[in-house]
Amino acid sequence: MTSTLVTGIAELVTNDPAVGDGSPLGVLRGAAVVAEDGRVRWTGPAAAAPAADRRVDVGGRAVVPGFVDSHSHLVFAGDRAAEFAARMAGQPYDGGGIATTVAATRRAGAAELGGLAAARVAEMRAQGTTTVEVKSGYGLTVEHEVASLTAAAAVTSETTFLGAHVVPPGAAREEYLALVTGEMLRACAPLARWIDVFCEPGSARAFDGDEARAVLTAGRAAGLGLRVHGNQLGPGPGVQLAVELGAASVDHCTHLSDADVAALADGDTVATLLPGVEFATRSPYPDGRGLLDAGVTVALATDCNPGTCYSSSMPLMIALAVREMHLTPAEALWAATAGGARALRRTDVGTLAVGARADLAVLAAPSSVHLAYRPGVPIASALEL
Amino acid sequence: MTSTLVTGIAELVTNDPAVGDGSPLGVLRGAAVVAEDGRVRWTGPAAAAPAADRRVDVGGRAVVPGFVDSHSHLVFAGDRAAEFAARMAGQPYDGGGIATTVAATRRAGAAELGGLAAARVAEMRAQGTTTVEVKSGYGLTVEHEVASLTAAAAVTSETTFLGAHVVPPGAAREEYLALVTGEMLRACAPLARWIDVFCEPGSARAFDGDEARAVLTAGRAAGLGLRVHGNQLGPGPGVQLAVELGAASVDHCTHLSDADVAALADGDTVATLLPGVEFATRSPYPDGRGLLDAGVTVALATDCNPGTCYSSSMPLMIALAVREMHLTPAEALWAATAGGARALRRTDVGTLAVGARADLAVLAAPSSVHLAYRPGVPIASALEL
Ligand SMILES: [Zn+2]
Ligand SMILES: [Zn+2]
Repeated sequence: MTSTLVTGIAELVTNDPAVGDGSPLGVLRGAAVVAEDGRVRWTGPAAAAPAADRRVDVGGRAVVPGFVDSHSHLVFAGDRAAEFAARMAGQPYDGGGIATTVAATRRAGAAELGGLAAARVAEMRAQGTTTVEVKSGYGLTVEHEVASLTAAAAVTSETTFLGAHVVPPGAAREEYLALVTGEMLRACAPLARWIDVFCEPGSARAFDGDEARAVLTAGRAAGLGLRVHGNQLGPGPGVQLAVELGAASVDHCTHLSDADVAALADGDTVATLLPGVEFATRSPYPDGRGLLDAGVTVALATDCNPGTCYSSSMPLMIALAVREMHLTPAEALWAATAGGARALRRTDVGTLAVGARADLAVLAAPSSVHLAYRPGVPIASALEL
Repeated sequence: MTSTLVTGIAELVTNDPAVGDGSPLGVLRGAAVVAEDGRVRWTGPAAAAPAADRRVDVGGRAVVPGFVDSHSHLVFAGDRAAEFAARMAGQPYDGGGIATTVAATRRAGAAELGGLAAARVAEMRAQGTTTVEVKSGYGLTVEHEVASLTAAAAVTSETTFLGAHVVPPGAAREEYLALVTGEMLRACAPLARWIDVFCEPGSARAFDGDEARAVLTAGRAAGLGLRVHGNQLGPGPGVQLAVELGAASVDHCTHLSDADVAALADGDTVATLLPGVEFATRSPYPDGRGLLDAGVTVALATDCNPGTCYSSSMPLMIALAVREMHLTPAEALWAATAGGARALRRTDVGTLAVGARADLAVLAAPSSVHLAYRPGVPIASALEL
């Protein structure tokens, strides 16, 4: 294979604390990277760079690990722009909510779903995201969940079965739960790495703690790793259940008790924050600063979906984490890269340590602080090697 | 000249209320545009489009008037990323603030300043901005203000002399005011369309009401149109002074009294809101909803500058106006296009009425609501015809 030397890196963020300035970001200035066979082979000062077959000069830009977006719902058809506009205006809107998306997704054929998912992954890549988790959850029948996961599996290895997104319109609650933990799970498990459940006892269509436990234990028995949507709309059992069952991540974490925070700090479950949801629903933000201060591992992700956050921009999530949740720019970048990797239990992404995947994002800026300092400006993109 | 027919427009926003759906946005669906000699020659239903020499198909996207960013400070060297990071962390930072930018701008040669301004205008254009006002104000000597306006005039006809940005470090207040209204004004007026002043009596380096009046009346006597930075950091005389003197716009408007709002509603001065500043300084937002409800003409702009908002993204300003100031997506888009044009007293931009400049922005989306619905995603770009 051809080796590539990347030079002209004003600031290289490796997320390897053994490298560079000793901070968690492992920052090197005036740096170079050698990539070969899709892996990082060498990082260090540009002056000491070894020879390579090819050379790419990024012209004084910063380079960071590609973003790891560990929570998205990219497999859907249609959009809900009118619902968004009504919500922002404080107006009632009976456009059907998630049922609209379920109906449009069921109507779409496999080719259309695949094309939509691929276009959204390309949109993310153009903004610096190189790993993305993709959930099903708008099919909600065996046939349509399989179709959704087939589309997801074509664009990522991080596929998540989310049959337990909501009880679909017209379905009886107990029967649907039996389907999700039975026939639907059996059909979907071969296509998925993870299982997820929307645990929100206060929401009529979502699942309470006992139901979520049933979904997760069935998924674990089928060989899937565990993820949880928890504590988004109000307090609930989601966070502590996720920690108890050893889920890789519990996502949203907007309404936490002290006991929830203590469980996260003591456990092995990442708290994934999705501030684009609070932005797009005009809701209070989770206490990201408090979680970090308590010693919790925090990830940032987009939750990209047509209902509550149709943003695919990890740089915006970083800017919101800094502005609204009082993370430092360095903490926010770590959460959007290494944090996302932890939330997916991956050690080969979210870092540019030697041996990791050569997933580089280049910034049209001399420093990674610009991700928060230049909100809305598309400065990040995946570097094609 | 060659005429161009633009087809495949799912939604065309003309800002011509005589066209289309009768709303202020003048929306046509399934539309086409004919441009010739840089002007809009025809708009209407695609099926009725006349012939043209060339055809461009935008493939089912929305097209809106290019954004009119009526307030920016693009002529500067260096950046202040470290100051931003310290402010976000609530830490004291004595990096020099604006003096850092003044020093870097003075050090930069004419070629460097011109190159930086041109790169920033290109960055804006790639995000859908087709008209931009550019201020001086980081030179603060006759020589360096002339150099700044020379760089500005190379990239836009909307140049603003802002010698009265702050009293520069080391300068005596009264002497500097005499310079700004005398020798510096005489040197700069031929390069500028507008004069502006930072009127903020509570800020030691800015200007109070009497000083601002002196600056503005001198500028008017030199043939310049008037603009004001007013009521950003606290209540003050800026807004009412702007209205009294017939300024085209008073910008920021964060701290307004009822009398200020009444003056704006009765006068001919646009209130230009800069929500990126509140985002980047973690400050309360102006009451955009209240201004609209009072009948005030509102514009949105970026204030793009290295100290208080280094964003060049008009789509982010639209998203913030909707999320934080309760404008509807339609009101926010109008403010970012037609509103900006009013703030610059222009009738040929911010609209796609027949006869206007053919400054089209194309959105990677079927509707302009997506500008707010998809925050952070770079969906807008200027259409090159
Ligand atoms: Zn989700
Ligand atoms: Zn300004």
